[in-house]
Amino acid sequence: MLTVQDALIRLQKFWTDRGCMIVQPYNTEVGAGTMNPATLMRVLGPEPWRVAYVEPSVRPDDSRYGENPNRLQTHTQFQVILKPEPGNPQELYLESLEALDIDIHAHDVRFVEDNWAHPSLGAWGLGWEVWLDGMEITQFTYFQQVGGQNLDPIPVELTYGIERIMMAQQGVSHFKDLQYAPGVTYGEAFGQQEYEMSRYYLDDADVEVNQELFARYTAEAEQLLQERLPVPAYNCIVKSSHAFNVLDARGAISTTERAKAFSTMRRLTRDVSQLWVERRAELDFPLLKTEAPKVLAGSAVRHPADEPELFDLASLPTVAETLAVEIGVEELPPHVVDQAIGFVRQQLTERLGASRLTHGAIDVVGTPRRIVATVADVAAHEPDAAILRKGPKVAAAYDANGELTKAAQGFARGQQVDPAELIRAEFDGVEHVAVKVTETGRDVLTVTGEIVAGIIESLRADKNMRWCDPQLSYSRPVRWLVALWGEIVVPVRASELTSGRTTYVHRTDPTPLVRVDTADRLRHVLDAHGLVLDPAARRQQVIDQSRKLAESVGGTIDFDGESALVDEITNLVEEPHAILGTYGEKYLKLPEQILTTVMRKHQRYLPVRDAQGALMPFFVTVANGATDDVLVTLGNETVLRARYEDAAFFYDADLQVPLADLRTGIGKLTFENRLGSIAQRADRIRDVAAGLSSRVELPEDEQATLRRAGELAKFDLSSQMVIELSSLAGFMAREYATKAGETPQVAQALWEMELPRSAGDALPESAPGAILALADRFDLLAAMFAIGAKPSGSSDPFALRRAALGLVSVLRAHPELGAISIDAGLAAAADRLRAQGIEVSDESVASAQEFIVGRFAQQLRDEGVSVGLVAAVTPLAAAPGVATQALADIETARSNDRFAPLVEQVQRITRIVPEGTPAAYDRALLAGDAERALVTYVEELPDHANDGVPQWFPDAVRLVAPLTTFFEDVMVMADDLQLRAARLGLLQTVVDRAPRGIDWRELNSAI
Amino acid sequence: MLTVQDALIRLQKFWTDRGCMIVQPYNTEVGAGTMNPATLMRVLGPEPWRVAYVEPSVRPDDSRYGENPNRLQTHTQFQVILKPEPGNPQELYLESLEALDIDIHAHDVRFVEDNWAHPSLGAWGLGWEVWLDGMEITQFTYFQQVGGQNLDPIPVELTYGIERIMMAQQGVSHFKDLQYAPGVTYGEAFGQQEYEMSRYYLDDADVEVNQELFARYTAEAEQLLQERLPVPAYNCIVKSSHAFNVLDARGAISTTERAKAFSTMRRLTRDVSQLWVERRAELDFPLLKTEAPKVLAGSAVRHPADEPELFDLASLPTVAETLAVEIGVEELPPHVVDQAIGFVRQQLTERLGASRLTHGAIDVVGTPRRIVATVADVAAHEPDAAILRKGPKVAAAYDANGELTKAAQGFARGQQVDPAELIRAEFDGVEHVAVKVTETGRDVLTVTGEIVAGIIESLRADKNMRWCDPQLSYSRPVRWLVALWGEIVVPVRASELTSGRTTYVHRTDPTPLVRVDTADRLRHVLDAHGLVLDPAARRQQVIDQSRKLAESVGGTIDFDGESALVDEITNLVEEPHAILGTYGEKYLKLPEQILTTVMRKHQRYLPVRDAQGALMPFFVTVANGATDDVLVTLGNETVLRARYEDAAFFYDADLQVPLADLRTGIGKLTFENRLGSIAQRADRIRDVAAGLSSRVELPEDEQATLRRAGELAKFDLSSQMVIELSSLAGFMAREYATKAGETPQVAQALWEMELPRSAGDALPESAPGAILALADRFDLLAAMFAIGAKPSGSSDPFALRRAALGLVSVLRAHPELGAISIDAGLAAAADRLRAQGIEVSDESVASAQEFIVGRFAQQLRDEGVSVGLVAAVTPLAAAPGVATQALADIETARSNDRFAPLVEQVQRITRIVPEGTPAAYDRALLAGDAERALVTYVEELPDHANDGVPQWFPDAVRLVAPLTTFFEDVMVMADDLQLRAARLGLLQTVVDRAPRGIDWRELNSAI
Repeated sequence: MLTVQDALIRLQKFWTDRGCMIVQPYNTEVGAGTMNPATLMRVLGPEPWRVAYVEPSVRPDDSRYGENPNRLQTHTQFQVILKPEPGNPQELYLESLEALDIDIHAHDVRFVEDNWAHPSLGAWGLGWEVWLDGMEITQFTYFQQVGGQNLDPIPVELTYGIERIMMAQQGVSHFKDLQYAPGVTYGEAFGQQEYEMSRYYLDDADVEVNQELFARYTAEAEQLLQERLPVPAYNCIVKSSHAFNVLDARGAISTTERAKAFSTMRRLTRDVSQLWVERRAELDFPLLKTEAPKVLAGSAVRHPADEPELFDLASLPTVAETLAVEIGVEELPPHVVDQAIGFVRQQLTERLGASRLTHGAIDVVGTPRRIVATVADVAAHEPDAAILRKGPKVAAAYDANGELTKAAQGFARGQQVDPAELIRAEFDGVEHVAVKVTETGRDVLTVTGEIVAGIIESLRADKNMRWCDPQLSYSRPVRWLVALWGEIVVPVRASELTSGRTTYVHRTDPTPLVRVDTADRLRHVLDAHGLVLDPAARRQQVIDQSRKLAESVGGTIDFDGESALVDEITNLVEEPHAILGTYGEKYLKLPEQILTTVMRKHQRYLPVRDAQGALMPFFVTVANGATDDVLVTLGNETVLRARYEDAAFFYDADLQVPLADLRTGIGKLTFENRLGSIAQRADRIRDVAAGLSSRVELPEDEQATLRRAGELAKFDLSSQMVIELSSLAGFMAREYATKAGETPQVAQALWEMELPRSAGDALPESAPGAILALADRFDLLAAMFAIGAKPSGSSDPFALRRAALGLVSVLRAHPELGAISIDAGLAAAADRLRAQGIEVSDESVASAQEFIVGRFAQQLRDEGVSVGLVAAVTPLAAAPGVATQALADIETARSNDRFAPLVEQVQRITRIVPEGTPAAYDRALLAGDAERALVTYVEELPDHANDGVPQWFPDAVRLVAPLTTFFEDVMVMADDLQLRAARLGLLQTVVDRAPRGIDWRELNSAI
Repeated sequence: MLTVQDALIRLQKFWTDRGCMIVQPYNTEVGAGTMNPATLMRVLGPEPWRVAYVEPSVRPDDSRYGENPNRLQTHTQFQVILKPEPGNPQELYLESLEALDIDIHAHDVRFVEDNWAHPSLGAWGLGWEVWLDGMEITQFTYFQQVGGQNLDPIPVELTYGIERIMMAQQGVSHFKDLQYAPGVTYGEAFGQQEYEMSRYYLDDADVEVNQELFARYTAEAEQLLQERLPVPAYNCIVKSSHAFNVLDARGAISTTERAKAFSTMRRLTRDVSQLWVERRAELDFPLLKTEAPKVLAGSAVRHPADEPELFDLASLPTVAETLAVEIGVEELPPHVVDQAIGFVRQQLTERLGASRLTHGAIDVVGTPRRIVATVADVAAHEPDAAILRKGPKVAAAYDANGELTKAAQGFARGQQVDPAELIRAEFDGVEHVAVKVTETGRDVLTVTGEIVAGIIESLRADKNMRWCDPQLSYSRPVRWLVALWGEIVVPVRASELTSGRTTYVHRTDPTPLVRVDTADRLRHVLDAHGLVLDPAARRQQVIDQSRKLAESVGGTIDFDGESALVDEITNLVEEPHAILGTYGEKYLKLPEQILTTVMRKHQRYLPVRDAQGALMPFFVTVANGATDDVLVTLGNETVLRARYEDAAFFYDADLQVPLADLRTGIGKLTFENRLGSIAQRADRIRDVAAGLSSRVELPEDEQATLRRAGELAKFDLSSQMVIELSSLAGFMAREYATKAGETPQVAQALWEMELPRSAGDALPESAPGAILALADRFDLLAAMFAIGAKPSGSSDPFALRRAALGLVSVLRAHPELGAISIDAGLAAAADRLRAQGIEVSDESVASAQEFIVGRFAQQLRDEGVSVGLVAAVTPLAAAPGVATQALADIETARSNDRFAPLVEQVQRITRIVPEGTPAAYDRALLAGDAERALVTYVEELPDHANDGVPQWFPDAVRLVAPLTTFFEDVMVMADDLQLRAARLGLLQTVVDRAPRGIDWRELNSAI
């Protein structure tokens, strides 16, 4: 059996054989190998750096007295840094797994999107977590920024989780059972240490001592920065960080301290990083002397940059041929796959359209590792084209005598034509002299070569990264490019990426690199290697295979309910290969939500249910291509069991904690630096909810429910379960509240206050739940706008759009809460924030309101309401319930033929009558027939200002005729100002007695 | 080329292949791998533990900004712990060197005594430093005690100095030039770190911050001990220790703080160690479950415990045969080899003598690895013997009737004899009944088996250790035993050691284990394998070979001057193989003392000199057996060059420091916890010397010399050179003082104050030097006796015996300083100590005086002075110069025949006259002839009380006759008390006028 220490030795050997240096773990506690200066400092600056090392990573917060099977206060990382990233780090990595006796042909190894960021180190990168049969065994990250500095060259970091890998390899379910060395288990060797250090971190570390340590180390770091000594300064930062982590595990970090500490650390790390690079520069970057070889030694697959094929353009076929392009990438995030397909399709269409090449159908498909485009019948050449070349303006081309000016003559000379050949032509409405020339059509290789290069250079996703290419940037590295027109390689160069005819099928394929003869063969070749290129076909395979497996145990899968998950799975694989797994029935006693959350969110497993929809102890996972199914099933089952063990551990642990303690616990969780802890936010929600409830008449029992739920608000965020699975927030509140003996109403209100969590999600049903949900969102929006954290462009880190939409949805679903308007809610939230000492400007409140109303309007438009109608009820939008009712009323009224003429008349009034005109008139002055007739009708019209359209319409419709006559006969804007005032006042009275809040001017004339 | 990281990987593999666990370096700074809890805690208690790990060892004090070729603030140790020690750790170790491509057959690998102790860890052990061609590459220690606890089982620790080994292997002379990894040097990778951390430790670490860190970590450790958490408590101890080391490197540790810190650390480590064992016991010693295999896997040589040979005693030959015994050991310290040979010889002689076996000559020889004894013609059996068995006393054996009592009858019955056979015999002067029986002689195997077992069990040296044997204890482990009588193996069992016929020649021999057929063959076999068993022969070979090599370059070796070194070399090897090396002539510019000290003390090299005695740039080293001489020469030359580089570095560095700063620097060096720093001691010496000088008349220039030298006293102890080579103390003072422009007299006095450094060493010649030397020793003795640290038994840690002898020698050599008596000196020293606040009791001063006088007396006796003579001048011993003069005078006088009769008369007086009798008499009462005659002579006798014997003798000799007559004729003790008083007074007058201070009663009558 491969022991843990064997694994470490194998990895050392593997990576030294590939040119890595071995260094030692850092000799002070670090939370991760990343914090070892061998990573954190060495990735900075231009020097190459290849290193591998073990790093016992100390995370006081993960202390579990050695009792949790998967969680240790010190776990063992194996860390590799390759700088610059060598172009095939995934392949090298896979080879390293083989060095650990992991058969990557038998197992399901996948690269699952994971974007890493460590704000207090000023660091981020893009990459994956690597899955081995569903277990995360490695963090794989292309660093982009560290210490606030952009990195160049780009390094790649591989962080192996040794305990995890070895638990899987050895088939044990508790880290203590790992064979650490021959005859010695991990528990025997290190169990006491794990227990005692857990005791220290959780129970016994002296808070005052560690506070002092933190302060002293920070001070020392500052001092050393002054002395321009980045190495010892960083050492002190790391030590202060550990002291902080100890304090944190002891629960001794207040919100303010946390914010301050993070900010200090970020600043110090930034300064150290800058200084390090400066100092290296002063030393002339010693490691630059040896240029790192481009390819690491070893046998790992590496897609070759195909040699350019010599081709004589003169022998270019003249018939149309298929164009086939494959952009080979490392695993794109699932949502990017679809975007990429669409983008390439759109770009190809546009760019081919902008050329003069004739072509047939454009077909683009893709998988996480490739975007494949084929264009039928692409002509060999563009036809020649007659074009005008623009010369000087006519005015400047001829002098007073009508002779050509020097400028015009120069133009003709430049175009190599006789001045006599100049003609006149209009460009952008201005007449110029011009020459008519024939532009020779370019050949297909030139045109499509430019097009493909252009597409690759313009590839962008929501998050982009750089890799070893000096210029390209995309969601993940682009590693190869196939571009064929018929039999010929289309020469493409995009930065350092060049085209060829070698594709790259499954990495585990016996012959992963395959030569493609012709463009038409590309998709055949890929198909033949099992790759399902069309996402729709892939999705169907996922469904068909999964269904069949579920049925094999008498179960079903709710594919409609799991639609988003199926979409994600579809883009996690190139060749769906569904596998059925099972888990212990005992876990079914856990709340279903926990089980399915783990399956979906962490594992991307499809839950299997019985005919009644109840969970069965089965799941379906979809591997990428053929595997040793027994092995992979076992692996996935082990992972799930471990996760469920964790969940059961958390669940049981949480149930031991009184709700009051959990509620207190959220005081340790920061919500936002300036806004305080989550407890402070929960207090605000409680108070705002209480305030809002006074605006509506709640029965006493609901009032009690609201009070109690308010007191407990958000308590579950400090539960271990929610810390582990944040999407269970609210759900666990209901669960734990119920178990703790709270009333079902309180439990439900706690759950409902989190609703809706996304568009289309369920809405609170109870009034207390709805009020809490509103208070939650009012607080969030008022607070974030107050501190200037409003969404901009695609950035909405606090999901304020979702909050605004949720708020509106709740209000619309609860007309009985109509008295809780947006402005009232925001005002209450603002007041409560101010009571906490947070500055909330009136402008920010107004801005928040505008934002919410804007979202509401968008929501209505998205629901198909016309722009005009939406605009018409916007004045009511502060009470979305009312606004929605008004819309409904207008819709109803619209079916009556007489409604449109009425509206037309009202609009006419609003167009004529200046704003602010009083609704009063001197009856005596209105002596004309039309005037008197209208006065009569107006005086009979009840005041419907506070009514809806249905009440107003039957009364008001009678005004259509007299108004029509009035406008025909009467000159409203009389010269006699008194008369004019009377007429305007009369008209205004008509409007004033109409339902208030409808913008008649906006009401679509199409009504 | 094997890179540094390759070496680490090879060692990991080597030791894991042999059952070691790999653990990680400790994740906080440690000064050595020993401090990693994987050593410090795991060696405690009964659990087996085998571990290997890299340990970057941080020693702030060794910071050199990366400039020193051999010294780094962080150097790389590779640490191995085998617990229990497996019985062949040396062989395993040698095999590990081969794993590093070190050809142990070509190189000279030696195990050179090195006893390790770390008082602040409460730890010590015995072992060696391992030399590779003269370079120390590994510390090899059998731990005996850690945390103040005796260890059982005994672990062995191997600590490889990786940089050193690799510098030798790679043939580079600066650590920065080491190939750390392919294409990357140590300097390129870690140079900046080395520089910056040096800056931090030496210049920039904030003192106040680190003081606080020290205090905080110590407090935390105390707290965690209370919580019974040894692991985190120890972690805090290590951290506090590092903070202390930082402060120390910053020069911020006062003497008091150091003493306090060490004491704290010792106490905390002890408590942690106890607690660790307690906690392991509570956990049922988890690692006890697997019994560690006795033999580690691997091919390392291991001396077999030979299978017992079956032998039928009935067929025992009857003729006498040779007895041959070989006690095989791991390398004994050189001085122990001779002791062991003597001990075995004496034991064999005694024990054989106590048996009845007849035998011939006993011959015992030995080397560091074996003691070989042969006894010629050992009889096959003891002869039978007639012996008496003692019964009851005669008085109890017969009743009143002369009948045998029951007791006597019982005795007869017990002896199975007829009561009639009882005889009477005297035992210790008392008559008993007895029986005469014949005791059958035992066979040779039984007798010699017991004798050999007894000798092995009683082997002891000045420092003894335990190893894997459960009972044996000796200077180093006893690993095998050959015991043959003729062809037959003598069966011996001493604890777990059993005898056989397999000897073990050079470890690097192609067949290291050799079967020996007969006792007579043993020495032949060993001879044939090149082992020179006889120390005298070996010594001669060392001399002959070395001389020849020296002569080959026209040089000589001062074998007389190097006698002690030659003795040591003789017992460092089994087969002398001298090798000539050279070193750069440029180093000859360094003071010779430095060069020879390095050669002798560190390297055991014989310096080669020219005809005039001046150093030539050559040395001779003596390897153990045949080597690849080119390789070994190169290695030794490299080592010497590195050491000389170091020395030159220190020398140059020291010369940059003003003497005053060096003098201030000794304030940081602790002398003894209670007595303060060395600076305080130097101040005391200065003051005591000044005081003593007032007792003698010094010319003004010598007074000036004394003052200045006193001011500078001991300054060189803070120089880097003396810190590195402490034996150069005084010498460097003279050197640096001269270079700094002090007068030659001051420089000389500074040197002379350290003299004599050992028995037979040179003595101070100048008066200032002598006075300083005296003051030094008076202070030492007074101080140590004051704090109760006087020598006891063989323990004399402060070398007080040497100090006392030195003091006496100086006084004897400087009669002009006679006024400086021992009592005066001690009194002055005591006063000065009291002035520093140290309590000095009168008893302790008296005790010190007695001690010194005792040493003086011993010195005289060692010089051959008879016990009586020594006793006779003891009253003068407080002024050894005077006493010595008196002795000399007495010696002279003895040659005169008339001296003895004179002494006899004086002794007669002192026998008769009671002490305290006044030297006065009433002449009138002394009327007899004899009385009057004597009175006449007495009245003519000048008072020589303050003279010496030479002055007194001519005058006093005339009293012999009248005294003889007086005693014949006069009854001194007359009944008339007045008369008696007159007679006694007359006699006392004779004595009073004799030289004072001679104890006449003690004067040997043999004079």
